[in-house]
Amino acid sequence: MSELDTLIGLLAKLPGLGPRSARRAALHMIKRRESVMEPLAAALRDAATAIRPCSVCGNLDTVEPCAICRDPRREPNTICVVEDLADLWALERTAAFRGRYHVLGGTLSALDGVGPEELNIGALIARLSPGMELILALNATVDGQTTAHYIADRAAATGAAVSRLAQGVPIGGELDYLDEGTLTAALKARRAV
Amino acid sequence: MSELDTLIGLLAKLPGLGPRSARRAALHMIKRRESVMEPLAAALRDAATAIRPCSVCGNLDTVEPCAICRDPRREPNTICVVEDLADLWALERTAAFRGRYHVLGGTLSALDGVGPEELNIGALIARLSPGMELILALNATVDGQTTAHYIADRAAATGAAVSRLAQGVPIGGELDYLDEGTLTAALKARRAV
Repeated sequence: MSELDTLIGLLAKLPGLGPRSARRAALHMIKRRESVMEPLAAALRDAATAIRPCSVCGNLDTVEPCAICRDPRREPNTICVVEDLADLWALERTAAFRGRYHVLGGTLSALDGVGPEELNIGALIARLSPGMELILALNATVDGQTTAHYIADRAAATGAAVSRLAQGVPIGGELDYLDEGTLTAALKARRAV
Repeated sequence: MSELDTLIGLLAKLPGLGPRSARRAALHMIKRRESVMEPLAAALRDAATAIRPCSVCGNLDTVEPCAICRDPRREPNTICVVEDLADLWALERTAAFRGRYHVLGGTLSALDGVGPEELNIGALIARLSPGMELILALNATVDGQTTAHYIADRAAATGAAVSRLAQGVPIGGELDYLDEGTLTAALKARRAV
C-alpha cells in the first residue's frame, strides 16, 4: 500500500499529528473520498499555487499587496509588528485592530544565529515616517523582547511613535495560577479606577 | 484569504484536528510549500485515484485483489474477520497473523439501523468451507459481540471452524486499574501453568 503509506508519512509530519492520528486521519479520508479527500487535495494544490508573501508587510495572501494592505478602510498610519503569521491571525480574530501589519518572520536569536538581516526589519523601518504609530506586538519571551528593543531603537530615528501591548493579568485569569513575572508586571502597570 | 480558509476548514474536519490545530498545520504547510504542501497534495490525489476496496475481503489497496489476498505466502484457509480497516492495520502491525482478512465495514446495530445486509457478511460466508478457520477479531463492545455471535451462527453452517480472540489481562496491565468485566473474563479463562 505505498500510496497510503506515503500519505500517512506526510500527515504524521504535520504539527499536532503523530503516526497514530495520521493513520486515523488517512482512514477517515479514504472512507470519504469525494467529500473529504478530493476537496482537500484540491485545496492544498490551490493554496500552494495561489498564496504568496505580501511584498509590503510579509503577510501571506493570494493577492499582491495582501487584502489587509490594500483595504482602504484600514488605518494606514498604524503598523502592528508581529513575529509570525499565526500572531497576525490571532490579532485579526479579536477584530480589535484596524491598522496594518508587518510580519517579521521570527525573532532575533543569538543562539540560532538569527540577525536583523534574516528578518523583515529593513522593510518595516522603510515604512515608518513621522506621525505614524508602530505597535510592538511581539511575544513576551526573551527573544521577542530583545527583538522589540532592537526595533524600538531603530524606529526612534524615523520619528514614528512606538508602543507595545500591555502586560498584566489575562481576562479570566486567577492570581493564584499566574507566574510571578506576570503579577509583577500587572502590579507595576496598575491603573487608577 | 479564501484558499487558505478553505484549506483550514477542511483540515479542521479531520479526526484529531480542531480549528486551532488546523490553523497551525496550514501555517506549517504554507511555510514549507515545496517540502510539505505540494507532496501532500500529490499524495492525496494519488491515494484518492489509486486506492479501491478489495472485492474479495474489503481491504483498501491499489491492487485488485489486495496485496494480502494475492500474497501466496499467506495462509488461505484462515480468515480473520475485523470491523474496520483500522483493526486490520492494528493486527498487521503485530506481524503475528499470517492468514487472510475480511473487513466487515462496521457492526450490526439496532440503534443505528445497521442490519446484516449493510455489512460485508454475505461475501464472508461465501468464502468459508469445511476445513477452514474463521477468527472473530471484533471489538469487545456490545455491538461487536452481537455481530460476532451472528457471524458465528451463520458460519457454523459452512463447516468452517470458528474461534475468537482471547480475552484477559492486557500485557503490562495492572489488576487494580482493570474493569470488573475484564477481570471476570481473565478469571474464567485462567490457564494451568
